[in-house]
Amino acid sequence: MNGGSFVKKGLLIVVSGASGTGKGTVLNALLEKNADISYSVSATTRKPRPGEKNGVNYHFMTREEFEGLIEKDGFLEWAKVYDNYYGTPLAKIEEKRAAGVDVLLEIDTQGALKVMDKCPDGVFVFLLPPSMEELKRRIKGRGTENEDELNKRLASAAQEIAVGKKYRYAVVNDEVEKAVLRLEAIITAEHCKINERDKEEIFAEYEV
Amino acid sequence: MNGGSFVKKGLLIVVSGASGTGKGTVLNALLEKNADISYSVSATTRKPRPGEKNGVNYHFMTREEFEGLIEKDGFLEWAKVYDNYYGTPLAKIEEKRAAGVDVLLEIDTQGALKVMDKCPDGVFVFLLPPSMEELKRRIKGRGTENEDELNKRLASAAQEIAVGKKYRYAVVNDEVEKAVLRLEAIITAEHCKINERDKEEIFAEYEV
Repeated sequence: MNGGSFVKKGLLIVVSGASGTGKGTVLNALLEKNADISYSVSATTRKPRPGEKNGVNYHFMTREEFEGLIEKDGFLEWAKVYDNYYGTPLAKIEEKRAAGVDVLLEIDTQGALKVMDKCPDGVFVFLLPPSMEELKRRIKGRGTENEDELNKRLASAAQEIAVGKKYRYAVVNDEVEKAVLRLEAIITAEHCKINERDKEEIFAEYEV
Repeated sequence: MNGGSFVKKGLLIVVSGASGTGKGTVLNALLEKNADISYSVSATTRKPRPGEKNGVNYHFMTREEFEGLIEKDGFLEWAKVYDNYYGTPLAKIEEKRAAGVDVLLEIDTQGALKVMDKCPDGVFVFLLPPSMEELKRRIKGRGTENEDELNKRLASAAQEIAVGKKYRYAVVNDEVEKAVLRLEAIITAEHCKINERDKEEIFAEYEV
């Protein structure tokens, strides 16, 4: 029964959150505690920055490679930002999920909306700051001194957060440890969920 | 935000499981660890047995009281077994949920199916033995020596378990501690779930 799991396929856990919410810190802590979760690495055509490693920070691709993969429907989602492509390659995710491994995808709201269409069985989690007051304080702490700049960032965060309503779950990052526990609880609960695809097979084990 | 909860109302957690699964042990352990969960006490017209306390084991009622409450639609579900009524009084559950308290209801599958109709926002959890082999061993351990009796019990358990497919979650009781952790995870996840009823109100806090 795979440790009490009722899904045969690994989960696709999709996490978004407005800038300043502390998404990076929370997800790093989650991955550190849970070595069995696989982090989905994005692909891009932009040049690696100093210190960035291929396959770790991004899968670095040429424009030809990227466009070839688009044509083969090889992305869960992709976007062109200025002159560069960014996207989520599908093959590795499917491979891991088929092997029962949970895959974590960190993505912006625009990307997540595309994934909701293409992969409705994904577990969509939106990370929230405890309040807009607290978000303001956190953005200020990052060194944004200019009031105009700060207000622009807050307005953009509020816009992103409004999209969070479309997600299945919301997790408040009041404390990193608590946010990680909530994410872990969501993953455990999703494994306990009875789903149409697998239920006949699983319950057949209990027939006499 | 009530500790990161996205439901304004307390949850109604409905747990069923076939006889021999260890439901009592798991739920007692859950309640001992989580003093904030309220256990829903059933009502009955049967006489108290030695040691049973009114309001703890059951709400003991006269037939007139029970039938009066049925007429006032005061039960979440009720059934007549031989000459006695058994049922789940609605008022206390609603009162607690309105105050944000999670309520745990332990009930058989027949009762749970009625609750699913009446209260579709309930969190329906089916407790499973790790396997039918293990269930057989557990029932044997309880002193059922007669092979006929044992087979009858197993067949009846299998029948109940088949109804488990209609629940939202299944939790395997391989170890009591693990089963409790899974139940806790389900409760935490359900608190993180974005629901139609409350989402506008909750996300309004993040507008600027």
